[in-house]
Amino acid sequence: MKALVYRGKEQRAVEERPKPEVSHPTDAVIKLSKTTICGTDLHILKGDVPSVTPGRILGHEGLGTVESVGPGVRAFQPGDRVIISCITSCATCSFCRRGMPSHCVSGGWILGNTIDGTQAEFVRIPYADSSLHRVPAGVDEDALVMVSDILPTGLECGTLNGRVQPGASVAIVGAGPIGLAALLTAQLYSPAMVIMIDMDRNRLEVASRLGATHMVESGADPVKQVMEITDGRGVDTAIEAVGIPATFGLCQEIIGVGGTIANVGVHGGKADLHLDKLWDRNIAITTRLVDGVTQPMIIKLLESGKLDAKLLVTHSFKFSNIDEAYTSFAAASRHKALKVIINFNA
Amino acid sequence: MKALVYRGKEQRAVEERPKPEVSHPTDAVIKLSKTTICGTDLHILKGDVPSVTPGRILGHEGLGTVESVGPGVRAFQPGDRVIISCITSCATCSFCRRGMPSHCVSGGWILGNTIDGTQAEFVRIPYADSSLHRVPAGVDEDALVMVSDILPTGLECGTLNGRVQPGASVAIVGAGPIGLAALLTAQLYSPAMVIMIDMDRNRLEVASRLGATHMVESGADPVKQVMEITDGRGVDTAIEAVGIPATFGLCQEIIGVGGTIANVGVHGGKADLHLDKLWDRNIAITTRLVDGVTQPMIIKLLESGKLDAKLLVTHSFKFSNIDEAYTSFAAASRHKALKVIINFNA
Repeated sequence: MKALVYRGKEQRAVEERPKPEVSHPTDAVIKLSKTTICGTDLHILKGDVPSVTPGRILGHEGLGTVESVGPGVRAFQPGDRVIISCITSCATCSFCRRGMPSHCVSGGWILGNTIDGTQAEFVRIPYADSSLHRVPAGVDEDALVMVSDILPTGLECGTLNGRVQPGASVAIVGAGPIGLAALLTAQLYSPAMVIMIDMDRNRLEVASRLGATHMVESGADPVKQVMEITDGRGVDTAIEAVGIPATFGLCQEIIGVGGTIANVGVHGGKADLHLDKLWDRNIAITTRLVDGVTQPMIIKLLESGKLDAKLLVTHSFKFSNIDEAYTSFAAASRHKALKVIINFNA
Repeated sequence: MKALVYRGKEQRAVEERPKPEVSHPTDAVIKLSKTTICGTDLHILKGDVPSVTPGRILGHEGLGTVESVGPGVRAFQPGDRVIISCITSCATCSFCRRGMPSHCVSGGWILGNTIDGTQAEFVRIPYADSSLHRVPAGVDEDALVMVSDILPTGLECGTLNGRVQPGASVAIVGAGPIGLAALLTAQLYSPAMVIMIDMDRNRLEVASRLGATHMVESGADPVKQVMEITDGRGVDTAIEAVGIPATFGLCQEIIGVGGTIANVGVHGGKADLHLDKLWDRNIAITTRLVDGVTQPMIIKLLESGKLDAKLLVTHSFKFSNIDEAYTSFAAASRHKALKVIINFNA
């Protein structure tokens, strides 16, 4: 089969690889229909994720058809159409039982990390019963690819961790795909306002179309602008969706009394925490690796039309053009790209 | 009347001052029976609290008898025995209505800060109806002084903000009076273990008597010790009760996946937040200025004997010896002092 393989820092190649097989009773092998590229894949290619070693097939998102299952798989059979969770869950360890499969002792984020991933014609999925979801009828399949990672990340790490409440004020720092997924899911909880902050005017325009009530350019004194919008109170929820010290610092400056800063960004270093200003502000700061526990909820939202994830998809490529897909996604701002879909059958 | 007055950095004096009077309809004037000294009073004397200006009577804790009330006071009348909350609550503003009187727009922590406090023979209490509690019968009055600040601080900022749960592992960094108040209140939620961390062996011994299950000297690689105690998992709750970057850093090193760091310490500067290590750990960090909303609960706990706050009181002084009380409290370690009670009638 063909697969996109990590070959070391800044190196990737489409290679011919053996088709994966069921190796544990709870495995399923999936024939991919669609996959996508995550910002994390770009981090890996920068050499920032040491757990990924050369030779690894990348990718942790996708949708396809069950090709074969091990004897321990009860919920799926060959021919079933499935969505692959970016998080593999054994459903048995204490972390899985506590609703934190992101820290599953034999799963978690392993696809395209410590085992081969979804940017290939076939992928082996361990613990298939608790790591796949059935494709619902009547939902756009590009939108369903967003169920693998980006939508639950926006919802779990941003909206839920940020405790977005009806009538509340929300600021999202970073209008990339993850920030926009937070924007879409935050609106499920009916905040009074969602302020989007980014340096890219095009992304702010996208945010406006996706329901943001206020757009703030981060180059133009964003603290002052947010304070004016909130009558000096600051926001109830600040969602950090960039992953650098400056944007985390901005969240600290705009958070109101009793508010929550939800960190979604992947950080490569430490940040300053201004406890001298925050110790008495009754705030919370949260972190989370997506668990995928909201994927069933998200699928129902997509089925019912309460959430339109298609808005996050800007580009489609054939797998044979995955190199171009990476180029577009890596230069997202120039290409006005959000999520890019890679089709195996097109 | 006699009062302990802040005279500028490192300067305090007992002075003769006019007895306060009711100046607003919702005021009460209280004749003090008992007061105490808080770590915050020492911060003020170091010149670290700019809102406190020379001439201010210090103190925000105490117990006494209502001397007079304004016409708007409904719940109390002269002769009533009352506990004074360190937080003054108007009960009307949005913060008070949201359960955050610490940020009351016309109250909050004002006693011994922006208005005269309780280290005096009399004190004026604004919004008496929502800022005083009736003294229950049959409870030691020294223990009741702990209701003003230290017990709700330990409970609200430590135990509740730290989400202490039955069966959980808790570490408390700092075994001073506030850390010990967190220790006492954490046990209300039946954690499996409470690990106390301090540099002072005497304080650790006190913690042991007060229910801590493990004592860790902070000079002897506390991270390693906590990891050994928790089988490498780290703790579910880490309560920071010191207020310096090093102890906040220690909390980050010992917190387990899904855990909560509750900051109780008063910080004078920023601290490093190691987001590179914490972004995917599903943790929360919380801050809070005590609100006093648990004071009714604490009073019931003292009445029922479920909480023994007398354990926190080590020294008693007459108000005429308040200078000696300050000296003992400031050199707490040498004097083996926790909370010192100052008696007006003794």
